[in-house]
Amino acid sequence: MSERGLLIVFSGPSGVGKGTVRQEIFSTPNHKFEYSVSMTTRPQRPGEVDGVDYHFRSREEFEELIKKGEMLEYAEYVGNYYGTPLTYVNETLDKGIDVFLEIEVQGALQVKSKVPDGVFIFLTPPDLDELQDRLVGRGTDSQEVIKKRIERAKEEIALMSEYDYAVVNDEVAVAAERVKHIIETEHYRVERVIGHYRDMVKSTPKL
Amino acid sequence: MSERGLLIVFSGPSGVGKGTVRQEIFSTPNHKFEYSVSMTTRPQRPGEVDGVDYHFRSREEFEELIKKGEMLEYAEYVGNYYGTPLTYVNETLDKGIDVFLEIEVQGALQVKSKVPDGVFIFLTPPDLDELQDRLVGRGTDSQEVIKKRIERAKEEIALMSEYDYAVVNDEVAVAAERVKHIIETEHYRVERVIGHYRDMVKSTPKL
Repeated sequence: MSERGLLIVFSGPSGVGKGTVRQEIFSTPNHKFEYSVSMTTRPQRPGEVDGVDYHFRSREEFEELIKKGEMLEYAEYVGNYYGTPLTYVNETLDKGIDVFLEIEVQGALQVKSKVPDGVFIFLTPPDLDELQDRLVGRGTDSQEVIKKRIERAKEEIALMSEYDYAVVNDEVAVAAERVKHIIETEHYRVERVIGHYRDMVKSTPKL
Repeated sequence: MSERGLLIVFSGPSGVGKGTVRQEIFSTPNHKFEYSVSMTTRPQRPGEVDGVDYHFRSREEFEELIKKGEMLEYAEYVGNYYGTPLTYVNETLDKGIDVFLEIEVQGALQVKSKVPDGVFIFLTPPDLDELQDRLVGRGTDSQEVIKKRIERAKEEIALMSEYDYAVVNDEVAVAAERVKHIIETEHYRVERVIGHYRDMVKSTPKL
């Protein structure tokens, strides 16, 4: 069976805890998907390993990959590039192995436009659920703070509509479990497996 | 939060083991969905409990419900009606509780036309996966038998395309677990939760 792997895009607003949940997901040995290590031009920090924490590259090398169309997504933060090299992703998917990206919202939207059949998971902050009650109930925040929180929530919700799933990060282990179940059940979706069944029937011997 | 429950339609070819997997799903206490008991006009058998195994009704009562449009789906087998009463399903969904139907393929297609946003899960026989290998490999079946098997597989695949998920019944406990994960992750789908987030933001106090 030569089904292609799924591209799993795990994203959400900065500060929501994407990295922590991702580490929890990969901390158990029974996952069947591979983590795509990001590429960056920022300097390697003590303790960081090239190819594990990031692929560390020079600005020239990174821009060469952009020019050649070999970045699935990329963005510039504080003068440094961050992005996902296309080659590793494609080679792994071609082997039938799922690839897991943990990226910022801007990058996720770039991937969405290139790989619409990816699985897009949005990690939401837990307080979003309780935002209204907390804002009304505690009555301690200044109008300015409440206004900013509502604005942020509105922005997040506008971006959420581009995703397939929203997972609340109320508890890291629970959120990680939810993400793993999403990846599992995406493999049962009829549009992903029906081709396999059709091929099988087609290739049965002529009678 | 007043989110409506999900209608879960669990179906598949007769003989695939739907009842066994359904019983396994409901054997654990931690499920959050309710089983919709079917209605039938066939005579109650010793040991069967009205309202548990089936709602037992007369032919006249059943036909009255059909006439009033109060059956979500129904079919006639060997001179008896079998179907799903609409009232229980709607009342339970309105309470925000998921409803689980275990029905035949014909009934599932009726539900699909009325409730397209239900979650349609197709239980497949395990040999479908291995059909080709077995047919070619063992070389013991008559051409007639092989032909029938292929025909049946083709019919099943044609119906599968109407569903959202295909779950292989290779092992009852594993299949039940897959179905439970599907029901869980359907609640994380953005189109199901985004209304809740939007309402919440809309209803925050004016500043």
